[in-house]
Amino acid sequence: MQTLTVDLGARSYPIHVGAGLIGRAELILPHLPMPRVAIVTNSTVGPLYLDTLRAALEDAGVSVLPIVVPDGEQYKNAETLGHIYDALLAARMERKGTLIALGGGVIGDLTGFAAATYLRGVPFIQVPTTLLAQVDSSVGGKTGINHPLGKNMIGAFYQPRLVLADTDTLDTLPDRELSAGLAEVIKYGLIRDAAFFAWLEENMERLLARDGEALTFAILRSCRNKAEVVAADEREGGLRAILNLGHTFGHAIEAGLGYGVWLHGEAVAAGMVLAADLSRRLGWLTVAEVERVRRLVRRARLPDRAPDLGLPRYQALMGLDKKVEGGRVRFVLLKRLGEAVVTADVPEALAAATIEENVASV
Amino acid sequence: MQTLTVDLGARSYPIHVGAGLIGRAELILPHLPMPRVAIVTNSTVGPLYLDTLRAALEDAGVSVLPIVVPDGEQYKNAETLGHIYDALLAARMERKGTLIALGGGVIGDLTGFAAATYLRGVPFIQVPTTLLAQVDSSVGGKTGINHPLGKNMIGAFYQPRLVLADTDTLDTLPDRELSAGLAEVIKYGLIRDAAFFAWLEENMERLLARDGEALTFAILRSCRNKAEVVAADEREGGLRAILNLGHTFGHAIEAGLGYGVWLHGEAVAAGMVLAADLSRRLGWLTVAEVERVRRLVRRARLPDRAPDLGLPRYQALMGLDKKVEGGRVRFVLLKRLGEAVVTADVPEALAAATIEENVASV
Repeated sequence: MQTLTVDLGARSYPIHVGAGLIGRAELILPHLPMPRVAIVTNSTVGPLYLDTLRAALEDAGVSVLPIVVPDGEQYKNAETLGHIYDALLAARMERKGTLIALGGGVIGDLTGFAAATYLRGVPFIQVPTTLLAQVDSSVGGKTGINHPLGKNMIGAFYQPRLVLADTDTLDTLPDRELSAGLAEVIKYGLIRDAAFFAWLEENMERLLARDGEALTFAILRSCRNKAEVVAADEREGGLRAILNLGHTFGHAIEAGLGYGVWLHGEAVAAGMVLAADLSRRLGWLTVAEVERVRRLVRRARLPDRAPDLGLPRYQALMGLDKKVEGGRVRFVLLKRLGEAVVTADVPEALAAATIEENVASV
Repeated sequence: MQTLTVDLGARSYPIHVGAGLIGRAELILPHLPMPRVAIVTNSTVGPLYLDTLRAALEDAGVSVLPIVVPDGEQYKNAETLGHIYDALLAARMERKGTLIALGGGVIGDLTGFAAATYLRGVPFIQVPTTLLAQVDSSVGGKTGINHPLGKNMIGAFYQPRLVLADTDTLDTLPDRELSAGLAEVIKYGLIRDAAFFAWLEENMERLLARDGEALTFAILRSCRNKAEVVAADEREGGLRAILNLGHTFGHAIEAGLGYGVWLHGEAVAAGMVLAADLSRRLGWLTVAEVERVRRLVRRARLPDRAPDLGLPRYQALMGLDKKVEGGRVRFVLLKRLGEAVVTADVPEALAAATIEENVASV
């Protein structure tokens, strides 16, 4: 097991990464104000890992309330959140009871937002079981739900007390979800870690083969990159926006297709290629560099083109993005491989050409 | 106009108290990151003050989105919150747009929670128009909504950028709501300000007659008391719990009768008398002191007895209280007039006797 600390002053917390962590209650116990938890999981992950986590905690004298919700991005909404509140209140969960998220990003976002708002805030622990959640959504404190008019529109910044990333859980992860997680891994290389990008070019096949050593390295390196950015800018005032590379396009793809048609990581992957291509049009990347990005994305078995929704639809969807300021869309782009910038100074024609020349029928 | 600052470090904010403040946009402008606001109000307060506030802001170049919700505690729920989100999203309100709460405690709590969670948090300003909201709910950062299983069960701690308490708004306040606000005013005297309690015994008739000078003094003194407590304990770890004097019983009364039958302040008033009587049973207050409390509550035209719901119902309702810890009910009681303590060390029989001997049919 290796440990990384996210430095947020009084709200600092550890991320443990390694094999077999779910069964180790002693890693969780120091973070519980009282021996009572609710484990929120879904109908896919629950059958795989809930019993192990639950038994470990109960053997240590912790009272456990399991809350199982349906699996899928389409359930990351106010209704499912309401079911979680109902279960907590019916069980009279108290203020010092802890909510544990056992699952992927959807479970983490939902459970984190429930923890942020139940009784005005209760302790929260993340046990991410997908690569995407381990390298991205369990680090940084973003929680929330979707709204029919946009993704993650309702939420809170709320930090966990602990993140437990058990690499064994990746053994049961579908190939498609492994690839979706790799999209965010590639992102860290692109935005601030050129050496890591080069390492990924060397080691992509090992990651796809689920080589434990390679995965552990990639998870830790990703978490460290994200933790450094988050520590410098907890509430997304500035720097943190670079973590959204590929997300302006990506959110439009997800919303345009309907949530759940493409995985979040798939949409981000295509979005990163578009961002790289737009960066080239601004004179920042070379054609060869854009091709390196496109090639690595493809090798990770991820889409390098956006679905053809038509340009007007993309423009409308991107106008609703949270990163809009004063009516102009702010893009996260690449000054070079390994250095991102945020800019609203993008000619509309270049953004339009980027979309039109990087779409494909799906 | 007088100003008090709530000292919360980077989240410190001013409370302005005085006449005619709603029309003074220059008090609000310095707190807006961009000239765009949504004013959330209700169908009772809106017709009285929305035009004044809106015109003042629009004359100063601020774009204003009015959101009018139904009036009443029964609308402080997930559905109304959803309507606010819908309106904000439909208008594409951005992250630097500010939410202004124009109304009483329900509007403040709802709007504050919407501000805490819309796009993971947007700026928030309180313009409280009831005495209760001016002395209590607009100070301290508690926001939230009710759940069928309990009051304020879902919420967040979220501080406003500014509180604008316009005393002119009290001219249109119904007598019953003025009294409800006085319950919280009396509370500050009881929990930490014996001199203020004595002042209230001298000046209750001036307050009921809406004497401007007396009201301004009482509002400022109340806000200062609350601000000092909140500054010392922003997230309700310890000291802040004394602000809940009367609320353990009071919440049970409100929930037991159904929200909206008694006003919050009325329930708190009866709850404070019960807390005083329970304090006497523990040997802390004299019979004469309990009578001083009861008499002042009555002079403020507030109930000094709880509705007769039956003891078992009270016990069940109080078990769900957020202040419960490890299964025991924690009470806020009085060591003397002007000094509150929080304790879970109350024999059940004394609490039961307090309820049984202080109920009346309603």
